[in-house]
Amino acid sequence: MENFIAYNPVTLHFGKNILPALGATLKEYGNRVLLVYGKGSVRKSGLYDQIMNDLKSQGFDVSEYGGIRSNPVIEDVDAAAVIGREHAVDVILAVGGGSVIDSSKIISVTIPVAHSGWDFFTGKAKPARAIPLVAILTLAATGTEMNPFAVVSNHTQGEKSAFGSPLTFPKHSFLDPQLTLTVPRDYTAYGIADLIAHSFEAWFGTGEATLTDRFVISIVKEAMEYGPKLIGDLHNYEYREKIMFAATMALNGMTMYGRSTGDWGVHSAGHILSLLHDVPHGASLTIVYPAWMRHFKPKISDRIAQLGSELFDQTLSADQSIDRIEAFFKSIGCPTRLSDMNISGVSRQSVLSSMIHNKVNGGTVKMKEDDYGALIDLYL
Amino acid sequence: MENFIAYNPVTLHFGKNILPALGATLKEYGNRVLLVYGKGSVRKSGLYDQIMNDLKSQGFDVSEYGGIRSNPVIEDVDAAAVIGREHAVDVILAVGGGSVIDSSKIISVTIPVAHSGWDFFTGKAKPARAIPLVAILTLAATGTEMNPFAVVSNHTQGEKSAFGSPLTFPKHSFLDPQLTLTVPRDYTAYGIADLIAHSFEAWFGTGEATLTDRFVISIVKEAMEYGPKLIGDLHNYEYREKIMFAATMALNGMTMYGRSTGDWGVHSAGHILSLLHDVPHGASLTIVYPAWMRHFKPKISDRIAQLGSELFDQTLSADQSIDRIEAFFKSIGCPTRLSDMNISGVSRQSVLSSMIHNKVNGGTVKMKEDDYGALIDLYL
Repeated sequence: MENFIAYNPVTLHFGKNILPALGATLKEYGNRVLLVYGKGSVRKSGLYDQIMNDLKSQGFDVSEYGGIRSNPVIEDVDAAAVIGREHAVDVILAVGGGSVIDSSKIISVTIPVAHSGWDFFTGKAKPARAIPLVAILTLAATGTEMNPFAVVSNHTQGEKSAFGSPLTFPKHSFLDPQLTLTVPRDYTAYGIADLIAHSFEAWFGTGEATLTDRFVISIVKEAMEYGPKLIGDLHNYEYREKIMFAATMALNGMTMYGRSTGDWGVHSAGHILSLLHDVPHGASLTIVYPAWMRHFKPKISDRIAQLGSELFDQTLSADQSIDRIEAFFKSIGCPTRLSDMNISGVSRQSVLSSMIHNKVNGGTVKMKEDDYGALIDLYL
Repeated sequence: MENFIAYNPVTLHFGKNILPALGATLKEYGNRVLLVYGKGSVRKSGLYDQIMNDLKSQGFDVSEYGGIRSNPVIEDVDAAAVIGREHAVDVILAVGGGSVIDSSKIISVTIPVAHSGWDFFTGKAKPARAIPLVAILTLAATGTEMNPFAVVSNHTQGEKSAFGSPLTFPKHSFLDPQLTLTVPRDYTAYGIADLIAHSFEAWFGTGEATLTDRFVISIVKEAMEYGPKLIGDLHNYEYREKIMFAATMALNGMTMYGRSTGDWGVHSAGHILSLLHDVPHGASLTIVYPAWMRHFKPKISDRIAQLGSELFDQTLSADQSIDRIEAFFKSIGCPTRLSDMNISGVSRQSVLSSMIHNKVNGGTVKMKEDDYGALIDLYL
């Protein structure tokens, strides 16, 4: 094992009908709330009205920023921070999926300062203070609800970057699987893929940690057992619950105990597809992962074979493991080639240029510019 | 799954040679340190001198309470609290195993008040404030380093009780497996047994939680794979590391996600043997567990069979599972009958009376007075 520090101060509220505890939780931080949400589903589902009525009846002073885009952008973060600053909010309430919660983490550290939130991503500024963040999750996927990380795009710069600090953990996250019952089939599948990819990034990281490996396998096996059942029965509460819980466990720190780094190469390469073509995050991962394993197989053949053998309870070679994992992604309706997305205007050269501009890399296999072309050719 | 709240604010520092970070960590809380430790090994190993020199060279004002007994008693807690109060300490540094850290948790909430720490166990008082607690663990067993619980005996009352509150989490725990290299064979085995028993208590708890079950199985399989190797090679760092990490994971909350209660019947019954005959905690658990499973088999037969089948990777009946688990405990040198401890003066009646006086019970199988006699007869 590598030396590690485990720290996760998030209070996670999980289960059915837990939102009545929301008011008392927000009150711990004050009366002025900035409500942040996305482009539509929260309003359509009635959750927006429910929360707004609930907060107003309890005497909260609510300002709001709606319209956070999926694949969130820094312009929304900065605009929301202005509103939060003007209203001197005491607490942020983020209602949505990864995009909304990621954006809100950066909003929370941007409100107290006078510059763009992007300065945290470039390292130009370090946060000294954060407005407390409470999250209500409506999509099981990214694990953002129980970690400090945020991924945001800056289209002016042509970049998609990640940031996190001990200040950007949510204080509380509310996870009621009922709120995910209406997520459509494709985004449900992308969420399952995302949690599996997070687990894989840990698996391919640095440091031998046998118990942590068992946890990783546990999470992926759970997703592979109940993910397909959920895809076949989208309104099943029990399956929603299992996937929501697994997604949270997949990126709350425990898959990294005893490792010094994960291998975030696939995420990093996938972000390029989201940046250029708005490919949903989970879909970008299932496109890149099989290609990435095939390209780097000479370096990590044993580890790929071990992964497949553990997941499928039989001795598999690296090639067989990759094929089985790819087949799983397909079975839940995820793309495994960029062409599966039917996007017009895709250019190998523009993807390559953006990878170079964004300095796409990975922790353990040390992806370099030399690798980009071969990788693209494997998933194009 | 049952609704649950996950919250664990402990900062865990794990790995080789991590103690240089201790001074800066303590300084966060102030300059006046109460050092709490046990009856000998910390002095014998040289760790006491190392820490004391380190703290003094960094200008800390150190008061101390040594001599915490294994199976800790409330008298030590109260005496240490007096010293902490007199010196107006800013932070407690607990150096030792479960007894020292458990005692220090209660010391931390007793220093600010004028009554005995026992009042927290009886419910007569509730803690309002705690002196921050930093722990250095020297024995892999109880998991106390990453949870808020403490178990202490009161021999005047003839009771052994548990207490925990959000205030009694350690702020930081330092786990360097090197500090456990000199733990003798018997206590090493009891530690392995303890972490397995904690996992079992979760397994037999209330609430179906498939991913959490996988985590429990992961922890126990790790202990069953590397525990015997460690017993055969006590100075092996790698095995010490694996067991220390597994023990922490076994009682830091994650085995309880999605469950409303664990079944603490075996712990509760085992405490009686420690109270009356100073049986080491881990040994008390391996004595009671096989008997407990045999006695309650009619109620939880499927769950026992599932446990054994998952642990040993083959389909086993409940009886076969119990036999295999009992055989494992024996294989690492743990007692599975009270008579294995060769204690003089054991009386069935006094054990029974103490179980009645201590109101021994369990969460899920609902152990009652009617069960005590049969249980005792199975392990005597």
